[in-house]
Amino acid sequence: MSKLLIVGTVAFDAIETPFGKTDKILGGAATYIGLSASHFNVDSAVVSIVGDDFPQEYLDLLKDNKINIEGVEIVEGGKTFFWSGKYHNDLNTRDTLETQLNVLADFNPVVPDSYKDSQFVMLGNLHPLVQLSVLEQVSDPKLVVLDTMNFWMDNTLDDLLKVVAKVDVITINDEEARQLSGEHSLVKAARKIEEMGPKYVVIKKGEHGALLFHKDQVFFAPALPLEDVFDPTGAGDTFAGGFIGYLARTGDISFENMKSAIIYGSNLASFCVEKFGTERMQALSGSQVNERLLDFKKLTQFETQLP
Amino acid sequence: MSKLLIVGTVAFDAIETPFGKTDKILGGAATYIGLSASHFNVDSAVVSIVGDDFPQEYLDLLKDNKINIEGVEIVEGGKTFFWSGKYHNDLNTRDTLETQLNVLADFNPVVPDSYKDSQFVMLGNLHPLVQLSVLEQVSDPKLVVLDTMNFWMDNTLDDLLKVVAKVDVITINDEEARQLSGEHSLVKAARKIEEMGPKYVVIKKGEHGALLFHKDQVFFAPALPLEDVFDPTGAGDTFAGGFIGYLARTGDISFENMKSAIIYGSNLASFCVEKFGTERMQALSGSQVNERLLDFKKLTQFETQLP
Repeated sequence: MSKLLIVGTVAFDAIETPFGKTDKILGGAATYIGLSASHFNVDSAVVSIVGDDFPQEYLDLLKDNKINIEGVEIVEGGKTFFWSGKYHNDLNTRDTLETQLNVLADFNPVVPDSYKDSQFVMLGNLHPLVQLSVLEQVSDPKLVVLDTMNFWMDNTLDDLLKVVAKVDVITINDEEARQLSGEHSLVKAARKIEEMGPKYVVIKKGEHGALLFHKDQVFFAPALPLEDVFDPTGAGDTFAGGFIGYLARTGDISFENMKSAIIYGSNLASFCVEKFGTERMQALSGSQVNERLLDFKKLTQFETQLP
Repeated sequence: MSKLLIVGTVAFDAIETPFGKTDKILGGAATYIGLSASHFNVDSAVVSIVGDDFPQEYLDLLKDNKINIEGVEIVEGGKTFFWSGKYHNDLNTRDTLETQLNVLADFNPVVPDSYKDSQFVMLGNLHPLVQLSVLEQVSDPKLVVLDTMNFWMDNTLDDLLKVVAKVDVITINDEEARQLSGEHSLVKAARKIEEMGPKYVVIKKGEHGALLFHKDQVFFAPALPLEDVFDPTGAGDTFAGGFIGYLARTGDISFENMKSAIIYGSNLASFCVEKFGTERMQALSGSQVNERLLDFKKLTQFETQLP
């Protein structure tokens, strides 16, 4: 069984969308990635940090989903990272209302000994130096996937570029790909980003799907058209978790297999947005996942008859 | 051989994009639709109107592409419809700089006798009463496709709804679908529009592809990711021309076959945007079309292995 090491936030979120708002609920990139990857039969572990205000039930939830939390440091007297945001009416944009770094400010990630030989490493969105530190503790990974965002491009670009240079796959959204590359065309942006290190570039376009680039090859997975999108929080992390989870499960990191991985990621993300926070992902069964996978096939697969 | 009747503008365009600008060049919905549909072995005819300022070489161009122009009225002393627009830097939005209706203001479309039994009818973007008049002159069409835009929703909604009620397929862009239906979710929008008449709803999302809805079924075709988009003018018409051209060629109007039709339309549209106006479409060979069709397959088709 492949080992999948995940670094990222385990956090409190407070979310407001046109459909309602939540108090502090379970959130964080590593949480979403872990829950999503738990749909594949892999041995996954999270490296993160929380305060002692973090409820035991949330930690139990991760454990119940067979996620090893040995690497989640609990700081006595510390407070857990908190993010609060409000989505606009189209749900495509949001304002951050509040960010409390709390224990994340002094996070020194320690990879458990038993996961230093992980074949798959998911560097969830976090300070690039934290991502780098985790990567340096892993001996010989088969595939490293990096997720990041514009905040690190704006504030710690040099550090970010160091991590970018060391990973196999990067996942970023379209605007971030344009910012990082200075190119408007996503084809050109992907090519420039490949020159920075990653052999594979995944560009996430939210409701417009995701593109996978590798040299001259390109693959596209749509987002499933949904009647209602309730809360986009965590969709990108869920996508990434499904992507690397599928690759870790199959052990096949060819471009062809990455196509399926992108579809799996999109499929899992389509559930995530149906309820607030992690609610939908907590209640998601394997048969529901497989059923919707058939919807994805119907949505995209065709028989072309040449005239 | 199926007959395909096309109504729409045959016009002059002056276009400005971030990459350059043109003087008055050949344009018009029917022009793009006709050129696109000419890639299928169908007997197509255009119903339109021009002034005597319209160059013979443009009419010859249509004829050379085996498009019957018996139904293109040439008004002595009249001036041809003229549109001028400027695209913004992202090429997704544009400003209309000038619209001169000219001979289009009094257009009374006359369908040639030999095309009154057309099996396929493409109502290109135009005043809904003109579209309606053409439709009433065709005896028993197998499939009628309507293209329209927000201008008619804003100014002649009642007339537009009369046409919408009589067609089999409607193609509109995402914002127009939202405007027509009052629904933000495209799934809900398509359902509401189906209730207005069309059994099939095609929602065009430009660089983000196109969706085909029919009852509970949905299919998605991406736009091909291009290094450079030069001029989006006519892309939607080219898409529609490829869609109905493929259906007319195959004679099969099932949902399954419409999937391929959408792919063909997207494929042809991907060429249209590579040069100014109709330039790329004029020089497009069948082998180039078929070659890029393989790119579309690679872009979207996958083998899913269930874990």
